[in-house]
Amino acid sequence: MYAYLCSISWGEPSVKPENALYDTVIVRFSGEIGIKGEWTRRTYEKLVLRNVVKALHTEGFADAFVEPKRGRIYVKTEKAEAACERLTRVFGVSSVSPAKETTSSLMDIVQAALRLVEATVEDGASFAVRCHRVGSHEYSSMDVCRELGAQVQRQLEHKRLTVKLKAPDVAVTVEVRDEKAYVFTETFRGVGGFPLGAQAKTVCLLSGGIDSPVACWLAMKRGSPIVPVYFDNTPFTDEKATEKAVETARKLSDWASGSLRRMYIVPHGESLRQVTQKAPARLTCLLCKRIMYRVAECIADMEKAQGIVTGEAIGEQASQTMHNLRVLDEAATRYPVHRPLLAFDKTETEALAKRIGTFDVSTRRAKPCMAAPSKPATRAKLEAVKAAEEKLGVQELVDNALRKAVVLRL
Amino acid sequence: MYAYLCSISWGEPSVKPENALYDTVIVRFSGEIGIKGEWTRRTYEKLVLRNVVKALHTEGFADAFVEPKRGRIYVKTEKAEAACERLTRVFGVSSVSPAKETTSSLMDIVQAALRLVEATVEDGASFAVRCHRVGSHEYSSMDVCRELGAQVQRQLEHKRLTVKLKAPDVAVTVEVRDEKAYVFTETFRGVGGFPLGAQAKTVCLLSGGIDSPVACWLAMKRGSPIVPVYFDNTPFTDEKATEKAVETARKLSDWASGSLRRMYIVPHGESLRQVTQKAPARLTCLLCKRIMYRVAECIADMEKAQGIVTGEAIGEQASQTMHNLRVLDEAATRYPVHRPLLAFDKTETEALAKRIGTFDVSTRRAKPCMAAPSKPATRAKLEAVKAAEEKLGVQELVDNALRKAVVLRL
Repeated sequence: MYAYLCSISWGEPSVKPENALYDTVIVRFSGEIGIKGEWTRRTYEKLVLRNVVKALHTEGFADAFVEPKRGRIYVKTEKAEAACERLTRVFGVSSVSPAKETTSSLMDIVQAALRLVEATVEDGASFAVRCHRVGSHEYSSMDVCRELGAQVQRQLEHKRLTVKLKAPDVAVTVEVRDEKAYVFTETFRGVGGFPLGAQAKTVCLLSGGIDSPVACWLAMKRGSPIVPVYFDNTPFTDEKATEKAVETARKLSDWASGSLRRMYIVPHGESLRQVTQKAPARLTCLLCKRIMYRVAECIADMEKAQGIVTGEAIGEQASQTMHNLRVLDEAATRYPVHRPLLAFDKTETEALAKRIGTFDVSTRRAKPCMAAPSKPATRAKLEAVKAAEEKLGVQELVDNALRKAVVLRL
Repeated sequence: MYAYLCSISWGEPSVKPENALYDTVIVRFSGEIGIKGEWTRRTYEKLVLRNVVKALHTEGFADAFVEPKRGRIYVKTEKAEAACERLTRVFGVSSVSPAKETTSSLMDIVQAALRLVEATVEDGASFAVRCHRVGSHEYSSMDVCRELGAQVQRQLEHKRLTVKLKAPDVAVTVEVRDEKAYVFTETFRGVGGFPLGAQAKTVCLLSGGIDSPVACWLAMKRGSPIVPVYFDNTPFTDEKATEKAVETARKLSDWASGSLRRMYIVPHGESLRQVTQKAPARLTCLLCKRIMYRVAECIADMEKAQGIVTGEAIGEQASQTMHNLRVLDEAATRYPVHRPLLAFDKTETEALAKRIGTFDVSTRRAKPCMAAPSKPATRAKLEAVKAAEEKLGVQELVDNALRKAVVLRL
């Protein structure tokens, strides 16, 4: 087993909060990782571990001591409940449990469990005891269940708890790992996916809207570190749109375990002005997007990214009909355009945006793009689009935009 | 309002089942349609209507009479409950309710509602009455709620129902539409999305596996009629794989309201044999997929489709790392490759496959592809792939496969 100690505190954990209800977080790897081959699985587990450490580090869990052991990560911390909340948001984590560590002596396990049940389980609830054991001990897993179950009913009689083996209100769980044991009653679902860094980097088009941050987040969830690129349409929108995009990127960086620290702001107003003046109005959105794709490809070159991610969904806008997606795609010749929201309904995207935490920022009021035509093409002809681009001198627009692009530290 | 009568029975509904508990299904359009502009909304509503009629037609609801009215579709049928189940699977439908139609006289409404509550609401449940009214009547919506609520408590006293306005067990709902009224107590969620036919056609790569049918279904859910294409890898797989793919396509056609009637079977074994003999083993899967893309592009030409849909997800296979997706994408030069599952976790895809009904077929045992190398490239070099293709004479393999492709009627 690889060894990895948390960068926050080396050696033995400095704080041993004997009296705290919880002193440990048990972190489990996502199912996505479990189904991989040995080498990939180990690599991904190391990445999760690194990101767990980073996440705790950037959010001030100064006492945390992180230890990987037998397909789990154990985080020793006084603030186990707060750490749990944080760690459910680390990609590659399937679930976490706030737990109390004890020795593997059966008496210690029972004492710790009784204290936990007394404090956390509601009176009258049904319960079951579960035990997973690794190592050699004087007792079997069944012994633990039997003894603990009996003691809960005897010593906590006043709570009137009933045993229910199938679908109980509370599963009192004991994990025995060699000379240590962990007791817990709650498990919180993690975000799942692959650890950030498991896949190559992508350039993500990030607007101030609802969709694109969700697309960014989904790329991150599958392991890709992102480089957000915002196209500033001023004067066709106002500064509030830019503010929204920057704030959204900051919200996304909460999920990035410290790896998302900058974004590109590309001036796009001049390009858009040319489009509105020189090209057929009904093609505006398509031409606008195709210029964005081209700029994104150049940024992908600079960033050594492997693809472009957008928030487009089939039929979501006139420019995103199945027909027009083909017209758009044709502009990206060197990188694939990835559209994680391709088949999402708006309600599904909104629900995810709320969970991610970008919804409130995205729905804040800002001036909508004034360049959007009232009758956009839903089945544009590629030849017409290309003819318009020739007249516009698209490459020059792209070059100019890139020259004036700035990198913003988040 | 556009008028559209069901092709199954013209004129007045032939069957008037006075004594049936339900005689009507209320069909509501999905939220995706509601947010569109007027013209698009009407077009999409007409498509839903057409698909509702087709769905009923192909599944033997011979008595069904379909009528669109004020933002809803009303289906008159003796088999309202079975029709409900069927119509939740029509894309573009947000929900359905089995209902009893009455006149808009308050006394009739109360009588119908009492009968429905008597038969469907469990004793001791809490309930609320809701009323939506369109048209001019002698009573207000509030009058309906008050009168019906009072009558339920008086006449159905033996059921011991209690009024609970917020989150009741059952919402007894009355929809008054001019001279008619509909009473119901249950609403079932529909599949949502856009009506099939709202978007351009796509060519979908369909294997016997779990992922690709879900990707096909998601394309359909966003309105795209699909043309499934199966690549037959015999002798590297066996005939069971082909059987699985065909059966999966049939399962998908259950969702297609009659529009999915054929699939392409493309012989791919010879191409794969050449790849395994002449190219580096670690590139096998990438070369195999790139040939598939090229064949799919030719089929898209023939079918006048606008894109290619695959079941690829980031990192799901070695050939699907972010890096290798770029290598794959480069082979499709004329059509976009759409990957609706791009950011899905395996568990999410499996859950959806179960809901769609393809999971059981997909997980049936078949010989896995014997051409897959033990150490596939996860970061292949495009130049190496192109060099291997040159040696292979890819265009000839594509042409040969197309020549031997067959169209199978489902």
